Amino acid sequence: MRHIALMTDFGMRDPYVAAMKGVIASRCEAFIDDLSHDIAPFDVFEAAWFLRGCARYWPAGTVFVIVIDPGVGTARRMIAVDDGSRLFVAPDNGVLHFIDGVARSIENASLFRPDGSTTFHGRDRFAPVAAAIASGMPLDDLGPRIDDRVALDYTPPKYESDHATGRIVGVDRFGNCVTDVEHARLGFDAHVLRVGGAVITRAAKTYAEAGDGPFMIVGSSGCYEISVANGSAAGLLQLGRFDIVTIQ
Amino acid sequence: MRHIALMTDFGMRDPYVAAMKGVIASRCEAFIDDLSHDIAPFDVFEAAWFLRGCARYWPAGTVFVIVIDPGVGTARRMIAVDDGSRLFVAPDNGVLHFIDGVARSIENASLFRPDGSTTFHGRDRFAPVAAAIASGMPLDDLGPRIDDRVALDYTPPKYESDHATGRIVGVDRFGNCVTDVEHARLGFDAHVLRVGGAVITRAAKTYAEAGDGPFMIVGSSGCYEISVANGSAAGLLQLGRFDIVTIQ
Amino acid sequence: MRHIALMTDFGMRDPYVAAMKGVIASRCEAFIDDLSHDIAPFDVFEAAWFLRGCARYWPAGTVFVIVIDPGVGTARRMIAVDDGSRLFVAPDNGVLHFIDGVARSIENASLFRPDGSTTFHGRDRFAPVAAAIASGMPLDDLGPRIDDRVALDYTPPKYESDHATGRIVGVDRFGNCVTDVEHARLGFDAHVLRVGGAVITRAAKTYAEAGDGPFMIVGSSGCYEISVANGSAAGLLQLGRFDIVTIQ
Repeated sequence: MRHIALMTDFGMRDPYVAAMKGVIASRCEAFIDDLSHDIAPFDVFEAAWFLRGCARYWPAGTVFVIVIDPGVGTARRMIAVDDGSRLFVAPDNGVLHFIDGVARSIENASLFRPDGSTTFHGRDRFAPVAAAIASGMPLDDLGPRIDDRVALDYTPPKYESDHATGRIVGVDRFGNCVTDVEHARLGFDAHVLRVGGAVITRAAKTYAEAGDGPFMIVGSSGCYEISVANGSAAGLLQLGRFDIVTIQ
Repeated sequence: MRHIALMTDFGMRDPYVAAMKGVIASRCEAFIDDLSHDIAPFDVFEAAWFLRGCARYWPAGTVFVIVIDPGVGTARRMIAVDDGSRLFVAPDNGVLHFIDGVARSIENASLFRPDGSTTFHGRDRFAPVAAAIASGMPLDDLGPRIDDRVALDYTPPKYESDHATGRIVGVDRFGNCVTDVEHARLGFDAHVLRVGGAVITRAAKTYAEAGDGPFMIVGSSGCYEISVANGSAAGLLQLGRFDIVTIQ
Repeated sequence: MRHIALMTDFGMRDPYVAAMKGVIASRCEAFIDDLSHDIAPFDVFEAAWFLRGCARYWPAGTVFVIVIDPGVGTARRMIAVDDGSRLFVAPDNGVLHFIDGVARSIENASLFRPDGSTTFHGRDRFAPVAAAIASGMPLDDLGPRIDDRVALDYTPPKYESDHATGRIVGVDRFGNCVTDVEHARLGFDAHVLRVGGAVITRAAKTYAEAGDGPFMIVGSSGCYEISVANGSAAGLLQLGRFDIVTIQ
């Protein structure tokens, strides 16, 4: 059975996610999975990075419905991206930045709920489109291919022969500061990580065996993280998202 | 496959929802869906309005299990309401106020878990009843029909020829103040919305294109909302639930 | 269809749970259920008690994946416990303390994701192991049986002929203080409950009918709770986890 995986910034206290699930359940038989509904309101970057961290693990045929949509109802496009295995539907605002693939503009209004709102396309457009795809509708029925997707406001890390510069892209629940510097892209051994005023020279392979004080670690995304054993690196070092990180 | 959709005020940190899901999974094969477990404790009105906003989108045959139950273990009735398509089980405390249909008092104790508690009917009574219904048990086996359901403490809006008066019924995650005044019920064009000391004369069709300051908008429920682009109307205007709203 | 039930301390804002679900969905067809992802970070005791409160209600064949894992990547073992009906996989840190059964050390590395991380065994080891079990792999293929599981740091209650002594083991969302003193184990009628400086002599069978002030009640776990009608007993009496409780 297909999986339809949902990510929104709606939270679970309002009926919005429940309405989307109902529309999907009414139109196809599929597993409906919650990725997260705790994305910060309107935080397109957070959602894009989240998706980068989980999408690749899902089975072929999964349909992702990503509704972080501050421009709902405006002329912003709705897009579907086919990564060759999975299918992603979302507003065209950069939230699919890290998903490579063939993009289409979703323009087939016959797929939408009739008399839908201008304020809740998650329920009225994205959910029925996802159900149609999960039911086997050919992707070409969605609308024309496009090659001018809206880019995310994001500067990728720079990899030089003896150092790399990137950014903190998120602070997780444990206080780990996740950066976008990929270990596999370094052409040298990392000895020093600089961020804010801190200079970190300790590295560890596990959180528990690191001992006291901040250290760098290659996290589960393959990117460097700044961590503190049994504590919050973000709190201790006063770090936050988009702080610049240099690794030598 | 059937859907069994759960709404509680239990949160997810305690094992109560997990126990209910286990009972259901043990007794039938169905999709078990989370509507919300973040309803404020004992907040029957919040749950009733939530259900109004999502129930209609679910497929025929869905069984809703609604456990906002401050009177658990007392003589309060348990009811099942058949809206002609979906089935709702809940305590008889007004939480199904916005669900019209044939109501029954659930009195068939053979459906309950043996040796059940007096404090957790969600697990011991509502969950097994829902599983029995999902498994095809005739509704008449639940108990006798009733026509004296407990009413919600709620004054519906008044629609006059040139104005309507209602209330804020909820503030969503984005700070939008959702009212119960339905756009389709107005016999005039809305020009002015008054709430608290504020007089709002601007209207918009989308959140993003509204420009600065508060505005009125017909939200996804078909009711008027008071919103601020990229901000919280509730915070800016110091509005809260049950504040009276007049639209002219 | 099988159920695979997940409990973590990851929260839902980071992509960790979504990655685990993807791995499971890629490797087997099963219902994937959320027990909770709101366990406090690293709180092995909270997770163990949570599991005690819900596991028994799940159907035979359910696979529980419990990832509260401060020692991830160290030499701590991974274990699988078969309670004769359900199967639990978890780090060997006491989180399965209340689950009796045959334990195995998970040592069959061919089950793990290749090139997995040292920091996220939930995704790279526990999820694929759970999928393999749900797909019918014999449990003996996991690894050798063990009888030296790591114990939880926990002193069980003492039951004497005229009194019992235990502890508050959790405060639920409603402010009820749940103890580990089981009503069925008492050989006497409970008249007085002492906790902190408080002496509670009132008992009730339901929350709603208790009247004003704190009271004791046998909760849905079969253990005594300290409650206040429409209020928080923990807040009113300044009680917290591990406070000692005596019942006479």
